[in-house]
Amino acid sequence: MNNYLSGINGIDDLKRLKASQLDDLASEIREFLLENISKTGGHLASNLGTVELTIALHHYLNSPTDKIIWDVGHQAYTHKILTGRKNCFANLRQKDGISGYPKCAESPHDIIGAGHSSTSISAAVGLSLARENLDQMGDIYAVIGDGALTGGMAFEALNHAGHIGADINVILNDNEMSISNNVGAISNYLSTLRNDPTLKKVKEDIEFLINKIPKIGKTVTNTVDRVKNALKYSFIQGVLFEEFGFNYLGPINGHNIIELMKHFKQAEAIEGPVLLHVVTKKGKGYPPAENNPDKFHGVGAFNIKDGSSKKSKSKASYSQIFGETLSRMAAADEKIAGITAAMPSGTGMEIFAKAHPERYYDVGIAEQHAITMSTGLARGGMKPVAAIYSTFLQRGYDQVIHDAALQNIDLTIAVDRAGIVGNDGETHQGLFDYSFLRPVPNLVMMAAKDAEQMQQMLYTAVNYQGPAVLRYPRGAAAGEYVPRNVSDLKEIEIGKAEELIEIETDMDLTILTVGSTVLPAQKAAEVLNNNGYKTAVVDARFIKPLDEEIIIKALKNSKNIITAEEQVLAGGFSSAVLELAADRGVAINKIKRIGIGDEFVTHGGMDQMKKEYQLDARGILENALSLLSKAEEVNELWPEKKD
Amino acid sequence: MNNYLSGINGIDDLKRLKASQLDDLASEIREFLLENISKTGGHLASNLGTVELTIALHHYLNSPTDKIIWDVGHQAYTHKILTGRKNCFANLRQKDGISGYPKCAESPHDIIGAGHSSTSISAAVGLSLARENLDQMGDIYAVIGDGALTGGMAFEALNHAGHIGADINVILNDNEMSISNNVGAISNYLSTLRNDPTLKKVKEDIEFLINKIPKIGKTVTNTVDRVKNALKYSFIQGVLFEEFGFNYLGPINGHNIIELMKHFKQAEAIEGPVLLHVVTKKGKGYPPAENNPDKFHGVGAFNIKDGSSKKSKSKASYSQIFGETLSRMAAADEKIAGITAAMPSGTGMEIFAKAHPERYYDVGIAEQHAITMSTGLARGGMKPVAAIYSTFLQRGYDQVIHDAALQNIDLTIAVDRAGIVGNDGETHQGLFDYSFLRPVPNLVMMAAKDAEQMQQMLYTAVNYQGPAVLRYPRGAAAGEYVPRNVSDLKEIEIGKAEELIEIETDMDLTILTVGSTVLPAQKAAEVLNNNGYKTAVVDARFIKPLDEEIIIKALKNSKNIITAEEQVLAGGFSSAVLELAADRGVAINKIKRIGIGDEFVTHGGMDQMKKEYQLDARGILENALSLLSKAEEVNELWPEKKD
Repeated sequence: MNNYLSGINGIDDLKRLKASQLDDLASEIREFLLENISKTGGHLASNLGTVELTIALHHYLNSPTDKIIWDVGHQAYTHKILTGRKNCFANLRQKDGISGYPKCAESPHDIIGAGHSSTSISAAVGLSLARENLDQMGDIYAVIGDGALTGGMAFEALNHAGHIGADINVILNDNEMSISNNVGAISNYLSTLRNDPTLKKVKEDIEFLINKIPKIGKTVTNTVDRVKNALKYSFIQGVLFEEFGFNYLGPINGHNIIELMKHFKQAEAIEGPVLLHVVTKKGKGYPPAENNPDKFHGVGAFNIKDGSSKKSKSKASYSQIFGETLSRMAAADEKIAGITAAMPSGTGMEIFAKAHPERYYDVGIAEQHAITMSTGLARGGMKPVAAIYSTFLQRGYDQVIHDAALQNIDLTIAVDRAGIVGNDGETHQGLFDYSFLRPVPNLVMMAAKDAEQMQQMLYTAVNYQGPAVLRYPRGAAAGEYVPRNVSDLKEIEIGKAEELIEIETDMDLTILTVGSTVLPAQKAAEVLNNNGYKTAVVDARFIKPLDEEIIIKALKNSKNIITAEEQVLAGGFSSAVLELAADRGVAINKIKRIGIGDEFVTHGGMDQMKKEYQLDARGILENALSLLSKAEEVNELWPEKKD
Repeated sequence: MNNYLSGINGIDDLKRLKASQLDDLASEIREFLLENISKTGGHLASNLGTVELTIALHHYLNSPTDKIIWDVGHQAYTHKILTGRKNCFANLRQKDGISGYPKCAESPHDIIGAGHSSTSISAAVGLSLARENLDQMGDIYAVIGDGALTGGMAFEALNHAGHIGADINVILNDNEMSISNNVGAISNYLSTLRNDPTLKKVKEDIEFLINKIPKIGKTVTNTVDRVKNALKYSFIQGVLFEEFGFNYLGPINGHNIIELMKHFKQAEAIEGPVLLHVVTKKGKGYPPAENNPDKFHGVGAFNIKDGSSKKSKSKASYSQIFGETLSRMAAADEKIAGITAAMPSGTGMEIFAKAHPERYYDVGIAEQHAITMSTGLARGGMKPVAAIYSTFLQRGYDQVIHDAALQNIDLTIAVDRAGIVGNDGETHQGLFDYSFLRPVPNLVMMAAKDAEQMQQMLYTAVNYQGPAVLRYPRGAAAGEYVPRNVSDLKEIEIGKAEELIEIETDMDLTILTVGSTVLPAQKAAEVLNNNGYKTAVVDARFIKPLDEEIIIKALKNSKNIITAEEQVLAGGFSSAVLELAADRGVAINKIKRIGIGDEFVTHGGMDQMKKEYQLDARGILENALSLLSKAEEVNELWPEKKD
């Protein structure tokens, strides 16, 4: 085998290769991707699908004068390899290593940073308008998947781009999937474009027929012209996109580099917006990923030979507990419905889907619609439960306020991946939800500390008559998971906290906390108590409404207060405590707030990042001792190895 | 003239009328609307456009078993009249009167509450799925304007509805406008459907031609079928919507009640989603509104005779100052671009548009796209300034975090209508932006107190190298507006507060405030100082970053602290003050936080509502005296008439 890849340290090196050598390069890159991702984990299937497309783009274009925008960005590994970051792949998605997504700070070739879906066409329109105003050069390409096209903002951008005739090229990377199977009428439509041989035949037939039409004077000639004109819009030519004002080219084989480049040339000759319909295969070239693109979308370390995971079977995740508990509850209550925005697997909603397919709705990458459709379900008498990652709920914020809370709709929003998410990094952290949901009237919001509470809280949220939010982190649930029968589930009193270690008069310290930091706080408190520091722990359970009585009691009876939350500190749980104290005129002696400061949290292992932000037991202990003016005791009380 | 309207106190009364009487009823309703809205103000043009449509719907359907969902809801006055709320129109949009939008609490016929755009199809899908699961009856109609169709979530819903074949009817109320003229490729498309006589002719011609094709055996018969099939998709029949999986009916004359009802009947016979393309005229029947539908979209009291406003020319609004200042700045800096999401008039961006049309972009009702497109403009070297109402910025929240702040993009977001908005009420209040923006890293956020500061702050925001937010209220700017030349504008130091009344040692009270509450606080403080209470006032100017030095100084030197902000108290400006105090270990003696509690603020006059929430000078004074334990002095210090 040749070794072209070793010579490529930037796109100039790529450009020196002949077109005939590029297929071999693609093979090498596939091997490189497999080798690296099998060790570090990362997005596999999507990147295997875009190897040829990326090579073709960079060979044909001149980045960064020409601008390539990767929608979502989980398909941009080959782009990173070709633009000088090949040697960084050993540390992909690791702390201080390169990001798994395009990141402006990493390279001038990452013209737009991303992570969330459906933003690329908007950015492309903006870049094209700037180019026009500032008399700049360069072509602009947005690469967007058919999944990302189900997000409404992609349509907002298509609609605007078509209207103003923005001179951009949109590559629709059609792999028939988002992360899971695609939903939506557009998806059906694309499938028709790709697959229906009848339609191709119809086009030929129509042309044949037109020629058969007897010529009977001027009127009919005009008519024939009109018919031809109408046919221009028949759907074999991508009329949907033509209606949006785009020129449609395709379908194009996305694994044929020469064919791709031919079409780029064709697109270049067209003024105004062009949509290139490129068909690729997720997982291309690696059979386990081709056969299970969903499973191989984002992976941990795995064995290349058979695709098996290197990680031993882990504990139940919160998502799994969510899916299982909801399924059990739904068996006893036929009004419960499950809604996901294209994340059936990630949210555990697929478990519900298997058990209750008739009440399961995957709406596509469409969080806005997911929330408002849920309010419709509720107004129709169902009990909708929408599971959405914290970071993606930002997309449905107005709908939470305007359609759910203001209308006091009886629905449950299960906020998955809340807190630090680990290797996906900055774009995916779920660190803002306390702050943006707490000000919303009518909402009830709780956070789960472990597997047991997760089940009880889900039961509580679904049974609460109004909009309820339940927040829980990514990954393995703390504590032991004992699946409960519905009859064993009890509603937690709304707004009622729990004193895990009782507040007595004259405490040295009380730790006020909620969600993922409760168990670490309890551990830290036990160490303190074992060493003579009178420490209480309160699990607030509810961020909203707050248990005013218990928190006031804590403030009044403690020389020192710690708040701990896996959230930004501006406007979060600790702020709620401070607001309460201020409004009640209760003085706080000394307080330390543990949480995330005013910064975006980068990628890195979940535990590693939690440790960095002192959200683990030792971190809380360190803060406690510092507050107690005994900082020096930490190594004695908690030797490093213990954590 | 007949008097049918007087006999209508609910839809049963309507149903008793014969079809032939309905046109007269429509005329009476138009007169009723004109008479009432000319006194109370409200949405005029949109409601005049939907009189016949609403009569037809309620005469044909059986609400609330059949469900009618009004998108945005500013066209639902006739619906309110027909469903028993005719006698409430004297108090329309007034405090304790009926809302200008559908509101579930007002009537069982208001099946979905609204105010923001593009939500109705989502709600309809949810209702249809609930109906299916619970074996309920009733047709479901969503009435959505062509403007609202530019919002991405409408497409998310169309895409999903088409995919699952939801049995809903979407009435596309096509009046060729949103509030201003529509933008977007779809708008062009609709216009083609409406207006091009050629296309109607083509359809006939094609059918004629097909019949002319010589029959030559089975092959061609199949071909003819295929051709017919292809023609089904030719765009004269609304292929765009057909591609989304909808059956398209139309265009339909939206002022012809009989024709409308015929089409409802036709839609009823079709299973699955139907789109009825109904063409109406905004302002129908009232020439001043027909000629200026934009101006007559939302109006104050006016003279019916000529449409002239009853209000005397008011002071310059913040929006006007924004538009004028930005235009002046842009004359000196060719990189400045202006972006609006379908609100050129409301935001004052139309002033900029006139001065700099080549750098002005109206993207449609598409806040998500507006923000991300702006980031593209910025990455391309422009200085984008996007003006968006606070309540609508909720729609672009994720884009602010993910596309603007995380990428540290150099753009300005001008947050108009921040605070209490008055008669539009609950759905439109701009009361959450401090809370949801404050936690976002990299953002700088300020709020203007008056006309002068507005200009200086806009200059500061645009010149700041990074994402900057400037917040200002609806309506007339406080203080005197002296338009400044660019050379007279100075950047305010980022994060620098201003002591309006100096903090000396041992103050009785310091008022910490920002934005619209600064001048009222100053007035209240002057009264206090005149009466022997040592009172200081700090204009924080920046919510983020906070001026730590001045605020700590205030906390340390004041026996009492008041914070005042036109915002919800959870997570807002006062929380920032409390967080700072806690983190610095500074005790606050006594504090009173003035702002909005945990509730949605209903409609009512702006001043009236501000007074109710004690955001005016007297309200602040009352709080101050209460804090100083001199509550009884308030009437003496500030006789009611003074406010």
